[in-house]
Amino acid sequence: QAIYDQIAEQLATAAFRPRALYERFNIEVLCTTDAATDPLDAHQAIRASGWTGRILPTFRPDSVTDLLAPHWRDQIDLLSMRSGVDVVDYHSFIRALEDRRTFFKTMGAVATDQAALTAQTSALTEAEADAIIQHALRDSATPEMAARFSSHMIGEMARMSIDDGLVMQLHVGSFRNHHPAFYERFGPDKGADMPIPTDFVQGLHPLLTRFGHDPRLRLILFTLDETTYSRELAPLAGHYPALKIGPPWWFYDSLNGIRRYFDQIMETAGLYNTVGFNDDTRAFASIPARHDLWRRSAADWLGGLYVRGVIDLTDAEAMIEALSYGLARQSYRL
Amino acid sequence: QAIYDQIAEQLATAAFRPRALYERFNIEVLCTTDAATDPLDAHQAIRASGWTGRILPTFRPDSVTDLLAPHWRDQIDLLSMRSGVDVVDYHSFIRALEDRRTFFKTMGAVATDQAALTAQTSALTEAEADAIIQHALRDSATPEMAARFSSHMIGEMARMSIDDGLVMQLHVGSFRNHHPAFYERFGPDKGADMPIPTDFVQGLHPLLTRFGHDPRLRLILFTLDETTYSRELAPLAGHYPALKIGPPWWFYDSLNGIRRYFDQIMETAGLYNTVGFNDDTRAFASIPARHDLWRRSAADWLGGLYVRGVIDLTDAEAMIEALSYGLARQSYRL
Amino acid sequence: QAIYDQIAEQLATAAFRPRALYERFNIEVLCTTDAATDPLDAHQAIRASGWTGRILPTFRPDSVTDLLAPHWRDQIDLLSMRSGVDVVDYHSFIRALEDRRTFFKTMGAVATDQAALTAQTSALTEAEADAIIQHALRDSATPEMAARFSSHMIGEMARMSIDDGLVMQLHVGSFRNHHPAFYERFGPDKGADMPIPTDFVQGLHPLLTRFGHDPRLRLILFTLDETTYSRELAPLAGHYPALKIGPPWWFYDSLNGIRRYFDQIMETAGLYNTVGFNDDTRAFASIPARHDLWRRSAADWLGGLYVRGVIDLTDAEAMIEALSYGLARQSYRL
Repeated sequence: QAIYDQIAEQLATAAFRPRALYERFNIEVLCTTDAATDPLDAHQAIRASGWTGRILPTFRPDSVTDLLAPHWRDQIDLLSMRSGVDVVDYHSFIRALEDRRTFFKTMGAVATDQAALTAQTSALTEAEADAIIQHALRDSATPEMAARFSSHMIGEMARMSIDDGLVMQLHVGSFRNHHPAFYERFGPDKGADMPIPTDFVQGLHPLLTRFGHDPRLRLILFTLDETTYSRELAPLAGHYPALKIGPPWWFYDSLNGIRRYFDQIMETAGLYNTVGFNDDTRAFASIPARHDLWRRSAADWLGGLYVRGVIDLTDAEAMIEALSYGLARQSYRL
Repeated sequence: QAIYDQIAEQLATAAFRPRALYERFNIEVLCTTDAATDPLDAHQAIRASGWTGRILPTFRPDSVTDLLAPHWRDQIDLLSMRSGVDVVDYHSFIRALEDRRTFFKTMGAVATDQAALTAQTSALTEAEADAIIQHALRDSATPEMAARFSSHMIGEMARMSIDDGLVMQLHVGSFRNHHPAFYERFGPDKGADMPIPTDFVQGLHPLLTRFGHDPRLRLILFTLDETTYSRELAPLAGHYPALKIGPPWWFYDSLNGIRRYFDQIMETAGLYNTVGFNDDTRAFASIPARHDLWRRSAADWLGGLYVRGVIDLTDAEAMIEALSYGLARQSYRL
Repeated sequence: QAIYDQIAEQLATAAFRPRALYERFNIEVLCTTDAATDPLDAHQAIRASGWTGRILPTFRPDSVTDLLAPHWRDQIDLLSMRSGVDVVDYHSFIRALEDRRTFFKTMGAVATDQAALTAQTSALTEAEADAIIQHALRDSATPEMAARFSSHMIGEMARMSIDDGLVMQLHVGSFRNHHPAFYERFGPDKGADMPIPTDFVQGLHPLLTRFGHDPRLRLILFTLDETTYSRELAPLAGHYPALKIGPPWWFYDSLNGIRRYFDQIMETAGLYNTVGFNDDTRAFASIPARHDLWRRSAADWLGGLYVRGVIDLTDAEAMIEALSYGLARQSYRL
């Protein structure tokens, strides 16, 4: 109770207001993730306030691309309203998404973020995609249709990123809401999401066949399956210019998790096919500690390479700057 | 030959009789695994002898739940005889198993132990289960039926554990008798069992949906697929109160295997979601050495955390006690 | 440019001619891989030249056993021509392969080398195999037929190795030519081959059931899926006398890759179920550096075991000799 009281007391002071913390944390950019249908009112309010902190929206299409998402139909109506494009078929659906991406860009967005159960990216023909979305609009989409549509939309988001330059992020392999009763009682994102094995090499094959060598695409991959570090992600990123490997995510954003990431990825992918660190947290106050852990782990890894003579001090200095700061800026085109 | 002779000579002395070794090894509890149909004569004999060593039976249902096990039909007849319940359908099969579990409890059992090729736990309706067992009783069960029945029975064993309080152990992922001619010549458990990949997250989903939050269930998981440590077992055990992670098993009960176990599980699951060490050996005389290896490996791991400042000495002292002794006692309700 | 010029200048000198480098590198044996249809002219020329360097061919059947390989039909015609056996059905196909193997042996071959996407080894009946090859000869083989035939031919190659004593090498798990446009432009083996998960335990089961205990077979396995090290390869090699584990391959032929190989394989398989090092390179000049990396990594691993008291100095001396030299010689019957 004493600790709780002390925290509550501190949080009430001016020094612990979010903007004060943002400045004290020495943050340069903070990105939120926002539904495709979000009017970005909060972002507008920050701009109107005259505050100079750089808070950017990130385009998250999951609530409209996942045909079985709760309230999908309402989200589509919202999408029509926000975009001014009446979503009645696949063609208008795509136009509405493109419109929203443009709007997000005007609000400062540099990236999109997408989640998928698997890395499957098989493309549909326009006719197939239209048939599926017609089912969904009549509330008759099957799980199999939804899975095929979701796979297809990963490729479509890549195509849009090539057009508008938004960096694409893909988070794969989380079996969401593993315990239904827990979900019904407490809602999503409460710790009942479980990792499953992921197959990037076969899953991303259709997308990479189309876009993997396109210099306009930047696709950053996040995994919950460490076995893909050396077997799939590093070889893929070593070959495809469009691919970058995101930092260790979720359960792997930890002391040992980071160490294994360095051990298994860097030899094959190379440091400059990774994107430094972003922490994907909902806990604002934890940001400095997370980045500190990453920087210390990175420095420890580099120190090990240095004392074993694998790199020299000049390398180490350039690499710690890249890991701590430069790669994230460049990767997200900040 | 000199070594063999020396061993044979020693084994003939009073100091190397099993009970003398039990006492010299300073064992508090030793659990055997026994078929559901076992009358536990040996356990009765120990009790009758007045010896105070604590040797407990463990309920192993595999020979009756695996419809394709050799001599299944004979085992069912034995089950009927031992339980006094004439097994003629699914209902009587379940009643007979429950009866045997009760008998095992009267003989001191604290746990059950079950093996399965996969972690699949899809439940059958009672009608489906009955139809399958009727096939088996007429000797017409297919491998597909047997697999479905086996998956179903894992959930049923969990339900029974909730009723009677026996700790449930599940050993998953061993392709038994990989070489048929070797099996025919030498029999089971001679080193021709091979690990296969295991999917706990999707496999255990039906069971955990029903029972994962039930405080009366304790389910201890053992794996031969290390990739599940950080990807599946640690996240699952971190969420579901019913789950605990068993010690490194079989090929992983080794110096490097234990180190990887600590590295990959503890950060996410937490020490207190593991159960300390039990060694699952058939080699009685190896027990002290195995526990010694575990304790030294645990101390080495904790020492590493201490010198790096992750834990302090008070933590380390509590953790080594838990790892060496306390967790095993608590986990098995001893 | 200065570096390029210096290299070009050096390569033009007598000291950098291939045979001079072979001798300077202190190579005892160098094995090429050659198509089943290769007349081995280059090997004949070396013999005729009187040079004493030991350059051996290795029998590689992929271009004729993969029914969908480019120019398969031309390769079959070549196979007929080289072997003098008119390949018109499965029986003559097998005879032609056996003939070529015999020819390779007369030219000094000690081994075969085979690549496969998966480790599947299900055998076909002779009638099934014949039906499939008839389809292929009429250019109507489906991918499913080709996959079944390829699986079958792995077993057939094992059978032939039992007959003629050639050591069998199997490289599994590379999704070749992942990017079709890149392949069309630059051809095969240009870095667009990606690893996929491999299942040795279930895949090799048919082959090992037939031949795993045959003392005449030596089958050396190479993997791109590290998760199989401790889960599958080490247990399999520990049981089956016919199996040996090849050195870390491709992406894993690296400082960290080698360390993980030692960590995850040796405890269970035992050093003497591995085959030392061969580097599988196309870059002749890199051979000394690769072997040096392996030897230093091996010495580092052994040094670690020694300082921790796991092995003594006598063990370490025997083991470093085996790892650096002896195991490769024995494994390939050199």
